[in-house]
Amino acid sequence: MRHTLARTAALCIVLACAMSIGHPGVQAQQRQDSGQWTTYSGDYNAQRHSSLTQITPANVGRLAVQWIFQSGVSGRFEATPLVVDGIMYLTGPDNYAWALDARTGRQIWRYRRQLPEGLNICCGRVNRGFAINGDRLYMTTLDAHLVALDARTGNVLFDVEIDDHKKSYTATVAPLIVKDKVIVGIAGAEYGIRGFIDAFDANTGKKAWRFWTVPEPGQPGGNTWSGDSWQRGGGSTWVTGAYDPSLNLVYWGTGNPAPDSFGDARLGDNLYTDAVVALDADTGTLRWHYQFTPHDVHDWDAVQVPILADITMNGAPRKVLMTANRNGFFYTLDRANGELLRARPFVRTTWAQEIGRDGKPILLEANRIGPEGTVTCPDVGGGTNWMSPSFNPATGLFYVTTREVCAKFYAFPQQFQPGHLYWGGAVEAIPGEPGYGALRAIDPVSGLVRWEFKYPRPSMGGTLSTASGLVFAGEEDGNVMAFDAASGKNLWRLQTGAGLRSGPMTFMHNGKQYIVVASGGAVIALALQDGR
Amino acid sequence: MRHTLARTAALCIVLACAMSIGHPGVQAQQRQDSGQWTTYSGDYNAQRHSSLTQITPANVGRLAVQWIFQSGVSGRFEATPLVVDGIMYLTGPDNYAWALDARTGRQIWRYRRQLPEGLNICCGRVNRGFAINGDRLYMTTLDAHLVALDARTGNVLFDVEIDDHKKSYTATVAPLIVKDKVIVGIAGAEYGIRGFIDAFDANTGKKAWRFWTVPEPGQPGGNTWSGDSWQRGGGSTWVTGAYDPSLNLVYWGTGNPAPDSFGDARLGDNLYTDAVVALDADTGTLRWHYQFTPHDVHDWDAVQVPILADITMNGAPRKVLMTANRNGFFYTLDRANGELLRARPFVRTTWAQEIGRDGKPILLEANRIGPEGTVTCPDVGGGTNWMSPSFNPATGLFYVTTREVCAKFYAFPQQFQPGHLYWGGAVEAIPGEPGYGALRAIDPVSGLVRWEFKYPRPSMGGTLSTASGLVFAGEEDGNVMAFDAASGKNLWRLQTGAGLRSGPMTFMHNGKQYIVVASGGAVIALALQDGR
Repeated sequence: MRHTLARTAALCIVLACAMSIGHPGVQAQQRQDSGQWTTYSGDYNAQRHSSLTQITPANVGRLAVQWIFQSGVSGRFEATPLVVDGIMYLTGPDNYAWALDARTGRQIWRYRRQLPEGLNICCGRVNRGFAINGDRLYMTTLDAHLVALDARTGNVLFDVEIDDHKKSYTATVAPLIVKDKVIVGIAGAEYGIRGFIDAFDANTGKKAWRFWTVPEPGQPGGNTWSGDSWQRGGGSTWVTGAYDPSLNLVYWGTGNPAPDSFGDARLGDNLYTDAVVALDADTGTLRWHYQFTPHDVHDWDAVQVPILADITMNGAPRKVLMTANRNGFFYTLDRANGELLRARPFVRTTWAQEIGRDGKPILLEANRIGPEGTVTCPDVGGGTNWMSPSFNPATGLFYVTTREVCAKFYAFPQQFQPGHLYWGGAVEAIPGEPGYGALRAIDPVSGLVRWEFKYPRPSMGGTLSTASGLVFAGEEDGNVMAFDAASGKNLWRLQTGAGLRSGPMTFMHNGKQYIVVASGGAVIALALQDGR
Repeated sequence: MRHTLARTAALCIVLACAMSIGHPGVQAQQRQDSGQWTTYSGDYNAQRHSSLTQITPANVGRLAVQWIFQSGVSGRFEATPLVVDGIMYLTGPDNYAWALDARTGRQIWRYRRQLPEGLNICCGRVNRGFAINGDRLYMTTLDAHLVALDARTGNVLFDVEIDDHKKSYTATVAPLIVKDKVIVGIAGAEYGIRGFIDAFDANTGKKAWRFWTVPEPGQPGGNTWSGDSWQRGGGSTWVTGAYDPSLNLVYWGTGNPAPDSFGDARLGDNLYTDAVVALDADTGTLRWHYQFTPHDVHDWDAVQVPILADITMNGAPRKVLMTANRNGFFYTLDRANGELLRARPFVRTTWAQEIGRDGKPILLEANRIGPEGTVTCPDVGGGTNWMSPSFNPATGLFYVTTREVCAKFYAFPQQFQPGHLYWGGAVEAIPGEPGYGALRAIDPVSGLVRWEFKYPRPSMGGTLSTASGLVFAGEEDGNVMAFDAASGKNLWRLQTGAGLRSGPMTFMHNGKQYIVVASGGAVIALALQDGR
């Protein structure tokens, strides 16, 4: 999977110079142990685990800011930057995007998509990042297009509609390159879209396949929706999935059914919402699915990045998929067939007693909501959310930012109106109970939390693991921190000035390992202080 | 001038906690050698020279980011933060303001002024900072008010109109506290205001005095304006002045006449525009003035911070005022009487051959502009601008960010219309000649440039001098840098992600010296890496 990369980047002295940059050999599946970071989650396994070892528990105290990039654009970064051959590619709010010199933070080019007025966007004008393939960058847009840019210039190579933004489709996901295809998800469940996962030809932008996350009547799963509710059933797919080349399966999380809370409008399990689906990468055909939250009424999207690993359970090697779900449970599945191997709560959960042997949650009274309101844990933000977890094969631990907070949920009937939010309910915070956050290290074999580091507030920052035994993570009060991967000891921290909403990444350039965090309106590059 | 300060700040663990903070003994005139930074330019001399010596030329390479504060507000910082007893007070774009824990960057409180619609603001919705007096903070507002805040809470104590924003008055200046008065300037010359400097009672907000920078007919200087042009004569005062307690004189720079370029609309020298005025601090009475650019047609405001120092010239001690002017000349004046002691160009100047013995520029042909356009150096941005210079008494050098750039100036008649820009001309960049910037160290005795450090682009960042022999400065490509004060050798740099538009400051807290720079939308605090 590793390629020798042609270094064509010329030295760029002045800001606006025309750089000749190109990465003819780059493939998204390239592992980041080459020192690159070529796909949203670092590699196809989505482990966000880097083989780089220059920064260690012993020297991480010398980690210091090397440069800061300020977008100058209103809004927050939720993206993970890519770095190839010393060039950083980054998307920001409102579909701005940049190429930066990864050593200095200097801008090489900037792209901005002209967006139409009146877009229906429930949850922030954000974007989660580029995919790269050779000299091409791919991003999704708030008006639900897929755009390919020339990595050397930022010029648009093609621009295709994923679906109609006038039907409240929008896109924030970082695409995933698999072979000759660009795989993307969609957003808009809060406006009653019908969700899907799409694949496009990476060269031409031609649609290759579509998998509807909400089947129509008569198809498998079609009988899990009452009436015509499937037409506006939600099931968004707004965070990037993973891929197993040996099985040729793409794994992708799906979001909540619509309306979010008034479940009576859509009786049934509402497949394939709040699930992970395993799709044939060439055809989009469903091979298996596992639904975490049947008939969800709490807006508990299951879009969390699924992590693939080969681990030993009960003495036998297992190819697993691991995910910490917004519903508060951590799951280990067999990724060949979707079989449930382990499920345990990783935060306080009051809606289900446990996950039964049949893979279905054993519900508790607190799962029922109506117009009078019910207090349930976790809250609508969930036990975790879009923030990327990571996995270290050496420690065998899964690192995830968690949220310990409950809320009062209401459900009531709501007529669907195109272009209007379609909640069918409401959520209230509980006065005097703001909750808290924690970085937790979970053993996927037992499902038990091995260690935790508490944060003052429920947090939304991703994590990064390195082979030197470090975990990097960020919290809501703006601190990015480094931890000992085995013990959870906090070894270093920096106040970045904004609550972390994206995952840290790392790369190596000219013999120097960098840690990069996008925080608020800034990208901050860290490395060991050389102590001149 | 030094006070023992009551330390009343309680340890603040969580973000929103109510801190009890107060600084009953703080006076603006307090020198920053106490480790505080209590007024815009550091002290009344406006030297921006700190006695702190923990950071030295030998160890500055270990300078590292301690924390970052991101305003989250659109727009750029042009403010210098104040720090008293470990609390930082900062103003930002759109009249947002913050109190931060100076050790961690954590927000203690935030203030935002509700601004009316339709303000006439020529040059950015910026603010240059607070003044502090005891437990009171003072800021000017974009709608031309003076607001006093409780330093402990950010609550408004009083709010008085400086002048009517509907007449295009606006304010961005950091106030100056002198005894029981708050002295402020005004902006709006590009809209044809009549400028002034105002003093208010610091306790009540009652107007104490006003000095009009444009006199009316019959008053001294009134005969330097043709017709009724004085009524809209400009002369803004948008950068903070200095104060000499022994002479009880406030020194303040004044801006360009209006209209900016069509001088025929205002025949005469146009006193007291483009001048420094020395005012009795108690009464606002003019003691002397020195006009740098009589009958300016290039928009060369003389609002640059004047620096006061006692230096030796021709073997005799002199109490001087030094300023590097937007018109490209550096001036050393006797600050008791305004006598010109030295004037020399510090950038390329083509509009005047030299400053004559009578203190008036000897004009060159390139000073004449009309509808056909004339190339003149410096450009409209000037040889320098609002960015603060600094002065080190030990090296005897004046450190200033300079701009080497020319432009083509046009003048043409324009009818004055209230609420409309009143340029009476235009300025064009010269294609292919973008110019460059430089940090320059000027000897105020000879007026000669002792050393320079070139920047790729004309720059607008202020400077800071320290007694350890360092100069900190920032440039347009986003780098904040440290230099050896004697030699100009660049010793350290950090890319902050936005062109520097404010002056660095320094303070000491719990035995640690910090350097702070406000850059773009962020405040960045630096200190020596402790190398854990």
